[in-house]
Amino acid sequence: MLDRSNDTPRALLARRRPGYSLEAPFYTSQEIFDLDMEAVFYKTWIYVGVEADVPDEGDVRRIDIGKYSILILRDDDGEVRAYHNVCRHRGARLVEEERKSVAKLVCAYHSWTYGLEEGNLIRADHMGTEFDKSCHNLKKVALKSIEGLLFVCFADDPPEDIEEMAAKMTPYLKPHDIRNTKVAFEMDLIEEGNWKITMENNRECYHCAGNHPELTIPLFEYGFGFAPDQMSAEKIEDANKYLCMADNLHEEWEKKGFPSKGYDHLDDMVTGFRTQRLPLNHEGESQTLNTKVASTKLLGNITEKKLGGLSFWTQPNSWHHFMSDHIVTFSVIPLTPDRTIVRTRWLVHKDAVEGVDYDLKRLNETWIATNAQDGALVGMQQRGLQSPAYEPGPYSPYTEGLVDKFINWYCLRLKDHLG
Amino acid sequence: MLDRSNDTPRALLARRRPGYSLEAPFYTSQEIFDLDMEAVFYKTWIYVGVEADVPDEGDVRRIDIGKYSILILRDDDGEVRAYHNVCRHRGARLVEEERKSVAKLVCAYHSWTYGLEEGNLIRADHMGTEFDKSCHNLKKVALKSIEGLLFVCFADDPPEDIEEMAAKMTPYLKPHDIRNTKVAFEMDLIEEGNWKITMENNRECYHCAGNHPELTIPLFEYGFGFAPDQMSAEKIEDANKYLCMADNLHEEWEKKGFPSKGYDHLDDMVTGFRTQRLPLNHEGESQTLNTKVASTKLLGNITEKKLGGLSFWTQPNSWHHFMSDHIVTFSVIPLTPDRTIVRTRWLVHKDAVEGVDYDLKRLNETWIATNAQDGALVGMQQRGLQSPAYEPGPYSPYTEGLVDKFINWYCLRLKDHLG
Amino acid sequence: MLDRSNDTPRALLARRRPGYSLEAPFYTSQEIFDLDMEAVFYKTWIYVGVEADVPDEGDVRRIDIGKYSILILRDDDGEVRAYHNVCRHRGARLVEEERKSVAKLVCAYHSWTYGLEEGNLIRADHMGTEFDKSCHNLKKVALKSIEGLLFVCFADDPPEDIEEMAAKMTPYLKPHDIRNTKVAFEMDLIEEGNWKITMENNRECYHCAGNHPELTIPLFEYGFGFAPDQMSAEKIEDANKYLCMADNLHEEWEKKGFPSKGYDHLDDMVTGFRTQRLPLNHEGESQTLNTKVASTKLLGNITEKKLGGLSFWTQPNSWHHFMSDHIVTFSVIPLTPDRTIVRTRWLVHKDAVEGVDYDLKRLNETWIATNAQDGALVGMQQRGLQSPAYEPGPYSPYTEGLVDKFINWYCLRLKDHLG
Repeated sequence: MLDRSNDTPRALLARRRPGYSLEAPFYTSQEIFDLDMEAVFYKTWIYVGVEADVPDEGDVRRIDIGKYSILILRDDDGEVRAYHNVCRHRGARLVEEERKSVAKLVCAYHSWTYGLEEGNLIRADHMGTEFDKSCHNLKKVALKSIEGLLFVCFADDPPEDIEEMAAKMTPYLKPHDIRNTKVAFEMDLIEEGNWKITMENNRECYHCAGNHPELTIPLFEYGFGFAPDQMSAEKIEDANKYLCMADNLHEEWEKKGFPSKGYDHLDDMVTGFRTQRLPLNHEGESQTLNTKVASTKLLGNITEKKLGGLSFWTQPNSWHHFMSDHIVTFSVIPLTPDRTIVRTRWLVHKDAVEGVDYDLKRLNETWIATNAQDGALVGMQQRGLQSPAYEPGPYSPYTEGLVDKFINWYCLRLKDHLG
Repeated sequence: MLDRSNDTPRALLARRRPGYSLEAPFYTSQEIFDLDMEAVFYKTWIYVGVEADVPDEGDVRRIDIGKYSILILRDDDGEVRAYHNVCRHRGARLVEEERKSVAKLVCAYHSWTYGLEEGNLIRADHMGTEFDKSCHNLKKVALKSIEGLLFVCFADDPPEDIEEMAAKMTPYLKPHDIRNTKVAFEMDLIEEGNWKITMENNRECYHCAGNHPELTIPLFEYGFGFAPDQMSAEKIEDANKYLCMADNLHEEWEKKGFPSKGYDHLDDMVTGFRTQRLPLNHEGESQTLNTKVASTKLLGNITEKKLGGLSFWTQPNSWHHFMSDHIVTFSVIPLTPDRTIVRTRWLVHKDAVEGVDYDLKRLNETWIATNAQDGALVGMQQRGLQSPAYEPGPYSPYTEGLVDKFINWYCLRLKDHLG
Repeated sequence: MLDRSNDTPRALLARRRPGYSLEAPFYTSQEIFDLDMEAVFYKTWIYVGVEADVPDEGDVRRIDIGKYSILILRDDDGEVRAYHNVCRHRGARLVEEERKSVAKLVCAYHSWTYGLEEGNLIRADHMGTEFDKSCHNLKKVALKSIEGLLFVCFADDPPEDIEEMAAKMTPYLKPHDIRNTKVAFEMDLIEEGNWKITMENNRECYHCAGNHPELTIPLFEYGFGFAPDQMSAEKIEDANKYLCMADNLHEEWEKKGFPSKGYDHLDDMVTGFRTQRLPLNHEGESQTLNTKVASTKLLGNITEKKLGGLSFWTQPNSWHHFMSDHIVTFSVIPLTPDRTIVRTRWLVHKDAVEGVDYDLKRLNETWIATNAQDGALVGMQQRGLQSPAYEPGPYSPYTEGLVDKFINWYCLRLKDHLG
């Protein structure tokens, strides 16, 4: 009756207009949300957290992504492992808590027990002599740690180009010594929008001037693009000064061992990513309100405070800012077509002491405020584009190019999946 | 597997039994709810409020109907306008608040700015010189004010017969001078039923005697039909007295310049409506508990308190009662198959002063109580007819004729839409 | 787009692996939930409560099952009746309250009035002389009381083998004199799992040792099966002692007039059931924490306290424990694919006085605790098996045989329905 044949995902993809936002069903329909999970979140590498989530042997962290529930744990040899959080008997969750410390993984239902190292079933009462325990080990999840940043993949054949991303990013990440950090603070924000709205919001700073009074203290106005033909001569001069300064700083930082010039593979790799070290304003040290370091115990062996911020973006669901003193790292998890978790972790040196080396409020206040502002914008856009009166609008070629690349990458994944 | 081929909207419409309530899917299914929105709420004229909702220049009122969000506003020339509440950039809502006063409509996301008069895009940074602002003005919504009552239509070709309704109703409405009223009180009640259950409840007073102790003070028992063959001789005499009195009052009122005899076009126009001026009981002045006026400052130039109540019903979603001193006006907005807003406004002369000319409790207590009673009945019916044991039951030919006309009209709209 | 042709109910049933839990869609999909309601809950005999729910003439109890709402009532002749809770006029619920006492059933909407004995419409105003009241009586629901346990069926042709169950069970139930009990306590627990997960949990005690510290006081470890090849010689001796004792007690009880040896028709009848009188541990009298009777006023004419517990299980939705002093009886009602009511009633002799003959806390604490523990397990399993990593796991042939029979029976009902 209601003829929706023009609104199949294939038809919608086929008529997508590059440089424009997507049609509404991409952001609102349950069918496309399910497709997104299948084509993107269950097929590509998903950023889920950091090794510091499970600092000690036996530490377990439950992470839910779509219909999956997985356990990230550190085994008795100090290795980080990932298993599906599903008992092989009748499917109960092994761990209901978000964090737990265990010796073995024991299902509360009938006490089936699994080892941490390989997920082997080591106890199952009453199953009889015919029963082969070795056929009922926990299912493993593909896990890749890039210098302590954890990516998982649910596909049988995870995209291999994560090795290229790892190779390229390792020199950038290594100086920040992520493996020797601790999670000083973690917070989940549920945004009332589709996960792609959340990602699009992250991929441009066109909205920063009007919405982020805290973040625009350390961030330069010109770091994310501008349209010179609409600017005054004075502003253009300012912008050119900024670009010149950034070039000089890149040279300087690289000499000191901090790769800075950047890569952009946002839409030409399955494991799409981008990186760039950006100068910060004023004191230039950190994304704090006074632009100075929040933690006096710098990361790894860093001695230079004024390193700006190394940004690292990955498709489909993360971004990260690495400063000399702390790291802010974001993982996006879709919940429903119009609800999305933004999970933010603030990392400091593992030996930094709260109240001594860092003040928690100074550390996290910029991004707590910024996230809340972005969450409001995401909800406002989601509610707006539900209207049948909405039609895709144009991205600014100067300030929304990375949004367009995100959408390009996304459409490629869907086309690839639909075959 | 579950064979629903007998329950398509077309099949259900084809086997509808006139004079009986509809089959359950019309009241419960998401598919038919979606169809109702497309065939009725997005195609016909919908009553949304009054000019007094935006009394001053720059006043904006957000109204959401189905998937649409629209802005009713008064521009700097005092004209009332209606726009879609969707930024032409990335689709964000321009106004999240229900009421606001603005100089321009500015999107909070990237500061795109629109004028109030024509919805013209007057600012969009960073879009470059190729970008044509004039192609990105706000989309207008068809708006018709009938003496201050606001109707909108989302169709490209709004039904033209609203002009006939306007022509016929203007003489009835004019004496009540709606444009010079103010909203003394407004309230949303969410009823737990399908919007058609809400409307059916409004279209008969068979249920009044048993459920509305307040409303039946001013309302005559016989004003909405009765079955003489089931009544005592005494009651029949009473009823005939009422009919005679009503005839006399109509003559009298018409002589004084208050058209009263009524029209019924509930099911023979796309813009279906009905009107009738009904005598009120006891003091006969107003729908109040003591049946006297609630506001001593009468509407417009009215000097006669005892005008009874002019009722005005429109398909698909409104009813109104115009007394000498105040107006009660109802707009119905479907939310889901089983949740519906009844938005009620109480209007008094714009210069009437609360506590001096009128007491708010006296003004609104009758309909606050009546609405709550109706809401309970609507929920009770909705819950009941979900049972597979429900089958359509007969409407009383004497007291439920307007319910049947509402259903006739509704079925015509669906058939028209399905083609 | 998302090819689900391999996941139709027919395909899922065809590839079901006996001895294993079902595939996830059986527990999670809305489509299969709807099918379960049609094929199982609207077709077979459903246990809904006890005659003691409506102890006096005019007592009404509303019970909702799926989309149905029904009224169980005791008419003026003391007969228990069941009607659909749907007015024949416009479908309103006649009774919104869960319990009520009435002289007639009067619809609050337009005062249509029905008698209790036959559900006859005895009043309907304004319907005119053409209207035939006798065509608008309340619809009856098939009702069968087995010694006071109430079963209803919504099918036009209720399964006839309930007579066989009634004939077989009557001698077991009669001594407990259910008709002369009262409901000392009733409680609804909403479990966060599919109704079949709730039932599977009930059909094994493999999980008892690890989860039910209270229930395992009166219950013997060996009453619900064990795998001898995984047990120590000592434990095997213990188990054999238990089996020998149970045999002796059965002989003894049967001699005293308490049938005890049991039947198992869980998957070979449409009205599937199982019964067995099980010895209780320690004092052996009742399912209480000290294993002694909770009510000193024994049921019916019983004088012997130590009768163990007669268990009675019915497909698809009940289980019951009959002791010498009290009865605990459970009715399962599906709400959504992942929410299920477990409604528990504790019955004592109708003349037993709270605080004198029984202490309520002693009476209900064992099963309140046990239900809560089971509810947590059900939620844990439901959440776990939603993962695409879940695959059906093996039931223990020693301890989960009744779970397998439940699933067998369920699959037969679906196949039968799908034809």
